[in-house]
Amino acid sequence: MSAREFGAAGSERDASHAAASASAASFAKLLETVRHHVDGQLAMWLGPKVVAANRISAEVGAAAEAVERLALRGGKRMRAALVVSGFDACGGQGRGSEAPAKSDEEHVGSLLRSVDRAAVAIELLQVYLLIHDDWMDDDDVRRGGPAVHVALRERLGSKRLGDTAAVLAGDLACGYAQQALLEVPVPADRLLGAARAFAQIQEDVVIGQLAEMSPIVADPRAVQVPVELIHALKYGRPLGIAFQLRDDLLGAFGDSSATGKPVGNDIRQGKRTALVVEMRGDSRAEALLARVLGREDASDADVAEVVRAMETTGAKARVEARVAELLAEARAALAAMALPESSRGRVWLAGAIRALGERSS
Amino acid sequence: MSAREFGAAGSERDASHAAASASAASFAKLLETVRHHVDGQLAMWLGPKVVAANRISAEVGAAAEAVERLALRGGKRMRAALVVSGFDACGGQGRGSEAPAKSDEEHVGSLLRSVDRAAVAIELLQVYLLIHDDWMDDDDVRRGGPAVHVALRERLGSKRLGDTAAVLAGDLACGYAQQALLEVPVPADRLLGAARAFAQIQEDVVIGQLAEMSPIVADPRAVQVPVELIHALKYGRPLGIAFQLRDDLLGAFGDSSATGKPVGNDIRQGKRTALVVEMRGDSRAEALLARVLGREDASDADVAEVVRAMETTGAKARVEARVAELLAEARAALAAMALPESSRGRVWLAGAIRALGERSS
Repeated sequence: MSAREFGAAGSERDASHAAASASAASFAKLLETVRHHVDGQLAMWLGPKVVAANRISAEVGAAAEAVERLALRGGKRMRAALVVSGFDACGGQGRGSEAPAKSDEEHVGSLLRSVDRAAVAIELLQVYLLIHDDWMDDDDVRRGGPAVHVALRERLGSKRLGDTAAVLAGDLACGYAQQALLEVPVPADRLLGAARAFAQIQEDVVIGQLAEMSPIVADPRAVQVPVELIHALKYGRPLGIAFQLRDDLLGAFGDSSATGKPVGNDIRQGKRTALVVEMRGDSRAEALLARVLGREDASDADVAEVVRAMETTGAKARVEARVAELLAEARAALAAMALPESSRGRVWLAGAIRALGERSS
Repeated sequence: MSAREFGAAGSERDASHAAASASAASFAKLLETVRHHVDGQLAMWLGPKVVAANRISAEVGAAAEAVERLALRGGKRMRAALVVSGFDACGGQGRGSEAPAKSDEEHVGSLLRSVDRAAVAIELLQVYLLIHDDWMDDDDVRRGGPAVHVALRERLGSKRLGDTAAVLAGDLACGYAQQALLEVPVPADRLLGAARAFAQIQEDVVIGQLAEMSPIVADPRAVQVPVELIHALKYGRPLGIAFQLRDDLLGAFGDSSATGKPVGNDIRQGKRTALVVEMRGDSRAEALLARVLGREDASDADVAEVVRAMETTGAKARVEARVAELLAEARAALAAMALPESSRGRVWLAGAIRALGERSS
């Protein structure tokens, strides 16, 4: 390699680093705009549902309000931002080159008007899944407030009624999500494609939750199943898996004040996280897991020992390496996609890879 | 009225009675054909799902198998037959007059090829709702076998794991139902309309389940909410409510060997059935309800006293009268519909009114 070529490669690396930073900043800005807009749209969409539900009975009203509160309480709106990015990257708006150049704000505003119902839908699907997930994991806290089953136990005055209403509240959110999606103003054949992807997401996530139930370390392929978040884009699968693996890492090594989940929860609940799978083959670690994993009354010292073993066995390093690999795969898939080079959507999707790869909550 | 007019009216009554009997027989025959076909289609549709699920983990396989078993175990396929009838009545096949006349068998076969995925979808939606409903009502038996949560508690060896897997199995069936519906080979805009109706059904039924939770007799409008089973046809709403009210009557006065549900279940579970709502205002009956309703340990004698009070207060007669009114409303709606007069679908829909109105299980 000549000096000149080396220099060129060096400046390409610099340029690529600068571009990655810029894309991450651009995605962060998009995320903020989307969050603001989608929060408002969720409130407007759910408001009439809650009013109608309260007219029927206390339980119906309580369930609809629980859905509304969880939907409006925080949430990064990462999924909504990815929907907007994907729509733009695939040339969703069309006729871009003929129209007068738009400012970033105008462009995002126009995208949101086209697909904000899809963003509302994906957030409501997430609310549905979170409600059932928190009930089955017995997690008390979600997005800095009580989980829906906890709020409904309190409000309806009994564990049994609260749990029943919580499962139904999840089902209600599922119906809402379908309805919102089917309101997206795009041509019928494209909307059907989106609805099919949506139904597939529902199956995949539920299978992921079932696969996670097993306290026995079984088939590592199961870890590959959860959370194919964005089927429509080929880069979504590795990104979705990386997101899930990052969750596993944060569950053991994260800052619980940032994640909102107590460290050790996954261990006490016996979740077969990627970290647990990666400890297989080490007999001391397996004996430790057999003793502690899935014991709700495990001491803090026992939990800390498992966390340490996740480091000493190399499980943590292997999962981190796998995250890096998956993010590289997502980057390569994005680079290979036949998307308009200059589209803001492409920049955002690149930024999302960084945002998801580096997240700490 | 002259003698001649009277005679004419008399023979019209006879003719209308004969037509009603013929339509009921025709619907019963359709129901049998549909049941046979849809049983096979459900088995074919679910088979690959179960194989794939078993490859992932024991819990995923157990949940998918539980869905499959409940879906294939009996079920009258009433909903599937109504889907086929409605499709035909609305002229779904089109171009009927140009094609050579078909035998009944050929006609039904051709209808089923068009919409059997919709029939599979509505049956899977029902499976989803039954799984969650049985879990929340703590009903042990469904369609002559163990309810899904009961089967999964046994198979997974714990109440907690079984209940979790059962709620997820319901969620899985919900995702399956969406997928099956979106495979119906009709034009995209019509399929979208069906998907919207489907999402609305899901919301309505879940709200109905929530409304039924309240042990306190509150707003009788809530009784009107459940089970708008067939939105696509205006006759569906009164028919759906009549179906639900008939369920309430059978729960108290039915033959448990035919219904498959022990008499008194609804009373011990504190369900706010239409019968309970109709007992309001009678202070002795209200005192009795306050003592017995919702008590899982209520004696058989107490339950029998409530059932007697349902008769003596006139609640039973009022609910039966309401069923008759609703069936008349459905008949009038069907008569007013702009459907091809001669269509077999119209005949079947008339037969369904009789089949639902007179059912004993």
